[in-house]
Amino acid sequence: MTPKIAQFLRDAAPATPCLVLDVDRVEENYRRLQAAMPQSRIYYAVKANPAAPILDRLVGLGSSFDAASYEEISACLDAGAAPESISYGNTIKKESAIKAAFDRGIRMFAFDSEGELKKLARSAPGSRVYCRILVGNDGAEWPLSRKFGCEIEMAKALMIQAAELGLDPFGLSFHVGSQQTKTTAYEAAIAKAAMLFTDLQEAGVKVRMVNLGGGYPVRYRAEVPEIDTFGAAIMGAMAQHFGNALPDIVIEPGRFIVGDAGVVSAEVVLVSRKAENDPVRWVYLDIGRFGGLAETEGESIKYDFRTPHDGEDEGPVTIAGPTCDSTDTLYEKSNYRLPLALDAGDRIELLATGAYVTTYASQRFNGFAPLAEHYV
Amino acid sequence: MTPKIAQFLRDAAPATPCLVLDVDRVEENYRRLQAAMPQSRIYYAVKANPAAPILDRLVGLGSSFDAASYEEISACLDAGAAPESISYGNTIKKESAIKAAFDRGIRMFAFDSEGELKKLARSAPGSRVYCRILVGNDGAEWPLSRKFGCEIEMAKALMIQAAELGLDPFGLSFHVGSQQTKTTAYEAAIAKAAMLFTDLQEAGVKVRMVNLGGGYPVRYRAEVPEIDTFGAAIMGAMAQHFGNALPDIVIEPGRFIVGDAGVVSAEVVLVSRKAENDPVRWVYLDIGRFGGLAETEGESIKYDFRTPHDGEDEGPVTIAGPTCDSTDTLYEKSNYRLPLALDAGDRIELLATGAYVTTYASQRFNGFAPLAEHYV
Repeated sequence: MTPKIAQFLRDAAPATPCLVLDVDRVEENYRRLQAAMPQSRIYYAVKANPAAPILDRLVGLGSSFDAASYEEISACLDAGAAPESISYGNTIKKESAIKAAFDRGIRMFAFDSEGELKKLARSAPGSRVYCRILVGNDGAEWPLSRKFGCEIEMAKALMIQAAELGLDPFGLSFHVGSQQTKTTAYEAAIAKAAMLFTDLQEAGVKVRMVNLGGGYPVRYRAEVPEIDTFGAAIMGAMAQHFGNALPDIVIEPGRFIVGDAGVVSAEVVLVSRKAENDPVRWVYLDIGRFGGLAETEGESIKYDFRTPHDGEDEGPVTIAGPTCDSTDTLYEKSNYRLPLALDAGDRIELLATGAYVTTYASQRFNGFAPLAEHYV
Repeated sequence: MTPKIAQFLRDAAPATPCLVLDVDRVEENYRRLQAAMPQSRIYYAVKANPAAPILDRLVGLGSSFDAASYEEISACLDAGAAPESISYGNTIKKESAIKAAFDRGIRMFAFDSEGELKKLARSAPGSRVYCRILVGNDGAEWPLSRKFGCEIEMAKALMIQAAELGLDPFGLSFHVGSQQTKTTAYEAAIAKAAMLFTDLQEAGVKVRMVNLGGGYPVRYRAEVPEIDTFGAAIMGAMAQHFGNALPDIVIEPGRFIVGDAGVVSAEVVLVSRKAENDPVRWVYLDIGRFGGLAETEGESIKYDFRTPHDGEDEGPVTIAGPTCDSTDTLYEKSNYRLPLALDAGDRIELLATGAYVTTYASQRFNGFAPLAEHYV
């Protein structure tokens, strides 16, 4: 928790649940990442947190933007981003949204299928397009399955087809999974992309860009490697596989930029046991999986907690949200322990919750309004 | 799909994604359930769908209401429900919310812990309270784990304590899990509740009510038992275990009342393959897990689809939502098949989506607004 967040919580005592996010930390993270990977261009993954104060600050810093929808593109343009700094990075787009983006000057689009390529040729003629390829996600706490990307052979055929359709076959992209804690995942993916890159150049396709995606980890409960380690490993792999002819390098960090800039302040609604002699207490908070903490699904992302009783005796707990839905349980198997003195009415802080919280919040599940947001 | 919904979709061609819900079907379901379980009192589980047209219709029919939050209580009162027809059924409540409900006349509250009981004694003095006990959920497609309820021995102690604290120890409740397809789950739970009921009466506690919860199934892809079968089995078990001295019987249907009254109309955004020879197509819709279809988590609830090409040749598909989140995949392992002719731009209907859709929808994940709602 940054001093500014701590002070805001102390002075304003905002109603819970809420997110308090320190925009200065966003800037620090941006600068830290740019320093770790100086040869890459940062496209902030807007979906991680599209709040205007964040976009404003990043526009000021010269960031580019990775948008998942026309609505996110609009938010970037509203924040003053230049159209040429925005990539429409979702491989699944309605043609009407492609057209709308193109009409507002967007000229860079992701794809991974022939269907999408044809939409782009019709509604974003001449644009730069990049094909997402499937790579391994080992080591990611929030892995990405096969939803996005296509196999190498198909990517090659589609990139050739892109040129034939009058599009600019600009580059290749991949994603090693979010909260990726292993540099080896990047190394393997870069090797794969480099082979296809060479193949395409030999086939006469003027491919010039590699998009490394995001996934850089944030510290939750467990330590993660420093970003400099990632930067060095990634740039080393790029040099190894591309030699002196480095392509344009795009990265799409979201979590890394905003994750540890935010803290969710919540209230303990109830502490109870299921039987007198049950060693495990249930701690119910006023925010849960459907109030924004969606990434606790399967206990994937393990947030760290601060309570007014830290340092006192602790015991094992199951932590759950406030709704009448039993899947609204955050942690049952991850060996969380909280102070025995914790009780209803206590405030509790969830650290590093600046990413992927506000936008996931349900509009009114069980009648609960989405959490408030404070940008300080 | 009811004729009224089909006509609305044909005539209005509403923008997708949207929910279209036939309020007459809500009334039919209410009457059908009341007929199947004439000795029980229906408390509609507002969380299933809190839309005003539904609450209005149910108030007119004389329904009572099971509310999960103060906000849901407010919605019921706004719809004209009498305070005495509303149960505050969440066992996890902020004391401020208990007080607010009590101030508006609510006198019936659920609990399952000493902490909650003390809040109720302080902020809802003299109210009817009922204790939720843990029971098995075998046979439920959306089971409820141990989040709600307590063990029998604790329930007994708490009910005795309720009377000592000046509350009215009104009854017991349980829940066998949502989309419960086995009547045996109710029979086992009723047996368990009846034993405790007798114990409590012998201990001098004036317990008078058994709340059987909800969970009555709706037909999705697979056939489910008729509600009459459930009614007969449940009332048979009540008679067997309580004899002639039947307590007040409360039921809390949500899904059963509104589930098959609604249809989500969506659009196919993309149909693609991951490799040329991949037999499985990916079908991406403009609604997914974070747009309201949260109950597809773990492929629990398997919705049935209607497309413009029904009856033509089909092939295997993976079905996913429109966001850049790979967990936003609906069905990958449930052997869904859709017409080979299905393509981007086609409309597609998801049947029996009137329950637990609109409220789960994220406020703006990936920039997408929640689905529109049309009550016809």
